[in-house]
Amino acid sequence: MGTLDSDNLRDRPIGVFDSGLGGLTVVGELASLVPGEDIVYLGDSARVPYGIKSLDTVRRFAMEDAAFLLRFSPKLIVVACNTASSAGVEPLRRRCGVKVVDVIRPGALAAVELTDGAIGVIGTEATIASGAYRRAIREIDPQREVYSQACPLLVPIVEEGREPSDPIVLHVLTDYLSRLQRRRCGALILGCTHYPLLAGAIGKLMGPDIPLVNSGQAAAKLIGQKLADEGISNPRPSGGYLHCYTTDNPQRFARLAERFGGRAADHVEYVGTDELESQPQLTNETR
Amino acid sequence: MGTLDSDNLRDRPIGVFDSGLGGLTVVGELASLVPGEDIVYLGDSARVPYGIKSLDTVRRFAMEDAAFLLRFSPKLIVVACNTASSAGVEPLRRRCGVKVVDVIRPGALAAVELTDGAIGVIGTEATIASGAYRRAIREIDPQREVYSQACPLLVPIVEEGREPSDPIVLHVLTDYLSRLQRRRCGALILGCTHYPLLAGAIGKLMGPDIPLVNSGQAAAKLIGQKLADEGISNPRPSGGYLHCYTTDNPQRFARLAERFGGRAADHVEYVGTDELESQPQLTNETR
Repeated sequence: MGTLDSDNLRDRPIGVFDSGLGGLTVVGELASLVPGEDIVYLGDSARVPYGIKSLDTVRRFAMEDAAFLLRFSPKLIVVACNTASSAGVEPLRRRCGVKVVDVIRPGALAAVELTDGAIGVIGTEATIASGAYRRAIREIDPQREVYSQACPLLVPIVEEGREPSDPIVLHVLTDYLSRLQRRRCGALILGCTHYPLLAGAIGKLMGPDIPLVNSGQAAAKLIGQKLADEGISNPRPSGGYLHCYTTDNPQRFARLAERFGGRAADHVEYVGTDELESQPQLTNETR
Repeated sequence: MGTLDSDNLRDRPIGVFDSGLGGLTVVGELASLVPGEDIVYLGDSARVPYGIKSLDTVRRFAMEDAAFLLRFSPKLIVVACNTASSAGVEPLRRRCGVKVVDVIRPGALAAVELTDGAIGVIGTEATIASGAYRRAIREIDPQREVYSQACPLLVPIVEEGREPSDPIVLHVLTDYLSRLQRRRCGALILGCTHYPLLAGAIGKLMGPDIPLVNSGQAAAKLIGQKLADEGISNPRPSGGYLHCYTTDNPQRFARLAERFGGRAADHVEYVGTDELESQPQLTNETR
């Protein structure tokens, strides 16, 4: 990308990618905090979910997703997917030549600021196995107790469209959260973009004294602050567009997006995974 | 492939593909019915599951999976994945130049032979939405009543390793099966390779009068018969190898395979989805 002064960056879109639809919860947060920013979103719905795959595979997918977003010359790339974030964004930062924001560190920071007590983390199998939240919390406070719980059924439960009051949702949540309830955590990080859709039910089970940390919301706040600090916010007070790309059926994406969004997409378009995998940016460095 | 006489075909392996590990239940059935046959298996674990994706995407993945298996000059390709089967195997048959067996028609046929009553079908969201089982049953018996139920949580439940006696498994199954129970079906097709692992619990809920049809088992029987009829069975009475390829981590594949198998893999190797997507066989016809 070379170096660019802030005048050039202001009007550029923010690029956001996720394994599927979940990252739209982060887009919703961004849209309410910085409504003037244009957003280009890539949901890799053909290869969703990332959370049950190995970190090597997730890293390769994330690199391809980010390379696709570079076509739109974004001022910033947001790794909205917790699993992709937990697989490590340093390689993305090195290769993309633009700022890359993940959702792990903002979530960890928000939790540490909320409580002096132990911190609970729930996430996908891959996110929890990576230990990324634990590391991020311990970098901020090396003594902090962290209790983690993988919750593999929550993503499919949300994608199936079950309501938080559904007895199966409550049964599954009770099963996953019982260990964390016993640990008397001071805050609980919702370490997956799908989990805010179950926040009501999770909050009821954990009780009113345990604040829930929405990682995507924490990342959106940090992004808003970063854009302002660096003088690269879009000067428009509102009216940014949301253009979405998906690797699976765009009609299906548009239909399901409403559940996650909070902001309607202006445009949804298909891009094949074969196209993502054959991007010239990647040929020399990742294969 | 050109034409080949049966002498040439006898020693060739059977190629089997699936979206992930589930197809190993079909391999297990094949291994006990025709233990002398060599098997090359491809599990597309990097893009699993297929059952929540659009049929167009599933068709493209299936074509890539089949093209990969052609490298091993198989005598037959088995589409072990119900979702890939339900997306239609005619394009595979036309392009592969070898016999292609899917799991839908064998399952439908077995169910029609078992009962004169209504037939229940459970499967993934994409399999049920495709209507493939209903069509296959009605082709055999145009008047037959068919009741279908998508069960999106069952695959993640099996992959999480929950036992059939787990209260959550029973709760979810009760939720999905209640409508089929009321319909008084004469047989129930387990229309997904993962479901045989829950057969005990499903059988208890449906009651002893409702036989369960394992589509993979039905397909394996048909394959054994087909090989014998055409004189292309491997003459060895036993000792066939099982070579597996996976698009995700091979160690993880080998570890989880035990749960599905019934036959240990002699060899597990990685093949990238980027390699699958750049196969020359496909360049002219599918892109």
